[in-house]
Amino acid sequence: MSSLRTLDSRIKAIEWQGDHLRLLDQRILPLQQKYIDYQNSDAIAEAITDMVVRGAPAIGITAAYAIVLAARDAYASAQDQWREAIQPALEKLAAARPTAVNLHWALAQMQQSFAAIDGNPYEYLLGKARQIHQDDIDACHAMGKNGAEIIGQANKVMTHCNAGALATGGYGTALGVIRTAFANQQISGVYSCETRPWLQGARLTAWELAQDNIPVTLIADTAPSHILKQGEVDWIIVGSDRIAANGDVANKIGTYQLAISAKYHGVKVMVAAPQSTIDWAMQSGDEIPIENRSADEVTHFAGKRSAAEDVAAENPAFDVTPADLVDAIVTEKGVVERPDSERMKVLRSI
Amino acid sequence: MSSLRTLDSRIKAIEWQGDHLRLLDQRILPLQQKYIDYQNSDAIAEAITDMVVRGAPAIGITAAYAIVLAARDAYASAQDQWREAIQPALEKLAAARPTAVNLHWALAQMQQSFAAIDGNPYEYLLGKARQIHQDDIDACHAMGKNGAEIIGQANKVMTHCNAGALATGGYGTALGVIRTAFANQQISGVYSCETRPWLQGARLTAWELAQDNIPVTLIADTAPSHILKQGEVDWIIVGSDRIAANGDVANKIGTYQLAISAKYHGVKVMVAAPQSTIDWAMQSGDEIPIENRSADEVTHFAGKRSAAEDVAAENPAFDVTPADLVDAIVTEKGVVERPDSERMKVLRSI
Repeated sequence: MSSLRTLDSRIKAIEWQGDHLRLLDQRILPLQQKYIDYQNSDAIAEAITDMVVRGAPAIGITAAYAIVLAARDAYASAQDQWREAIQPALEKLAAARPTAVNLHWALAQMQQSFAAIDGNPYEYLLGKARQIHQDDIDACHAMGKNGAEIIGQANKVMTHCNAGALATGGYGTALGVIRTAFANQQISGVYSCETRPWLQGARLTAWELAQDNIPVTLIADTAPSHILKQGEVDWIIVGSDRIAANGDVANKIGTYQLAISAKYHGVKVMVAAPQSTIDWAMQSGDEIPIENRSADEVTHFAGKRSAAEDVAAENPAFDVTPADLVDAIVTEKGVVERPDSERMKVLRSI
Repeated sequence: MSSLRTLDSRIKAIEWQGDHLRLLDQRILPLQQKYIDYQNSDAIAEAITDMVVRGAPAIGITAAYAIVLAARDAYASAQDQWREAIQPALEKLAAARPTAVNLHWALAQMQQSFAAIDGNPYEYLLGKARQIHQDDIDACHAMGKNGAEIIGQANKVMTHCNAGALATGGYGTALGVIRTAFANQQISGVYSCETRPWLQGARLTAWELAQDNIPVTLIADTAPSHILKQGEVDWIIVGSDRIAANGDVANKIGTYQLAISAKYHGVKVMVAAPQSTIDWAMQSGDEIPIENRSADEVTHFAGKRSAAEDVAAENPAFDVTPADLVDAIVTEKGVVERPDSERMKVLRSI
């Protein structure tokens, strides 16, 4: 049993409101804190695609609540044929983002319970979605402790994108580890990479850590290697959108080059993610689909055009970091150091 | 004698206008093409600090023209004491940007001719500044050929920041090599990293290459390693703001991590810069001063805030790439492959 204490976040990105879902609009943070209410599943699928909500675990939780609304509507229109009537909604949700496996995991969890339901599925599925949400929060706390234990006494850490309260049920994966390590005075501060094109680091992580009074320094995505060279950073701690059976890690674009640079500088790399992020069906990261998003995200900056009209852009949203650049994969169940296909099996058997 | 042809650029970032200097305002490119006229040296020093003009060779040329105006004003106010009267202007120019050595080189070139001047220094110094400007253009063409020759037949190349016509007298260092290689059908296209925080890649390089019909694809600074992994890029080609005697290279922040990633992927790294970029007084890159610019550049874009109000940021504008990550240093005089203190001496003796 860990003696480490955890530090709750004040941030609520996903909240069930009695009969509908409320999401914090992460597209306009931190300048505006606006909540949007959703009454049906298709609107939520669009919110996932448009990144009103983002972060692999948060997408899974959101999709679970969407199923509750989809089932309510399907039952209202088709009664006992609700399982057939809900299919279009399920398909739309499954297609909302291609890379995060947690989305598919959450949909599968919800679907598995369809068979056992008698009559109106609403209350049963709502209980199930709430459970997925609470389990994620509990998993983040466990992950926070597991990750903080292997950090020991460190100086600073660096993170990329946002794997925080905003990206999960409420505590964070990578930021859960950072919250826990900070609460236990193991680290003195955090570098947050701004994470173009979507600026999750600038807009979300820096804001989220500042909200919880954890010292954070924002840097451009061009600066991490220069900072690592100074020797103050001991760990890079990131989340993941999908982990292959061999320990290869898909995460926000830029993670891969941080890991290459970390290896060059002798800095360690930790990936913190719930078990549901591990896709045991994928033998290696080469099989993970990488979402390519609109070129507009690269030719614009915060809604304002930065490149000339006729300039082409590529916008891969994720990359794959090979397992041999990862020092530790941390889940709520345990830790795998120097991951490979063999060592990863420990997490499968727990 | 090289048989490679070169390809002139249509871009004029620095132009002497009979009796004053005209600069293309690079802060608002590519959305606006606006020229600003400067009548005195102090205003030009501020323009250099504010990055109306940027790029190490361009800063040097601009400073040379500024001295012409400073000397005209000093002579008007102090006659034969103009050499003393010009000192504050010289000091202000020297302090305008700390990292680029070309600035100091150009000021020294101008100052060296002060002693020989009899009477009004205006015409003589104007001739000198024009010569520095023309020499830079000629040097870029020579560099273009020298660099293109070692590329051989390649696929694509990647560049960072803007080492183009905009950054020089008119042809470019890294982009001079790229222009030449493209004109001779050695390469099929260019990846331009957007180069936060100032977005020189998005705003300047992508625009400049598109102006000259060279196929360019813009990517976020998080994406280069993912792109290099695809295997289409054979060379990373960049400019430099200062090169130490051992071949260590100071260049725009982000160059260092590109070079680390290039080494990891077996991609070659070329640094193209005029001889005036080599600071023989610096034994290694550790001695090169790194300019830290305002945190606002990281927390904002084009005047629009992207991070929360209370977030701290670090903004190193340059980094140092150690010589052992560089495959070739190309100047107008020649090429040093796998640079080190010993091999660099070749360039000193030419």
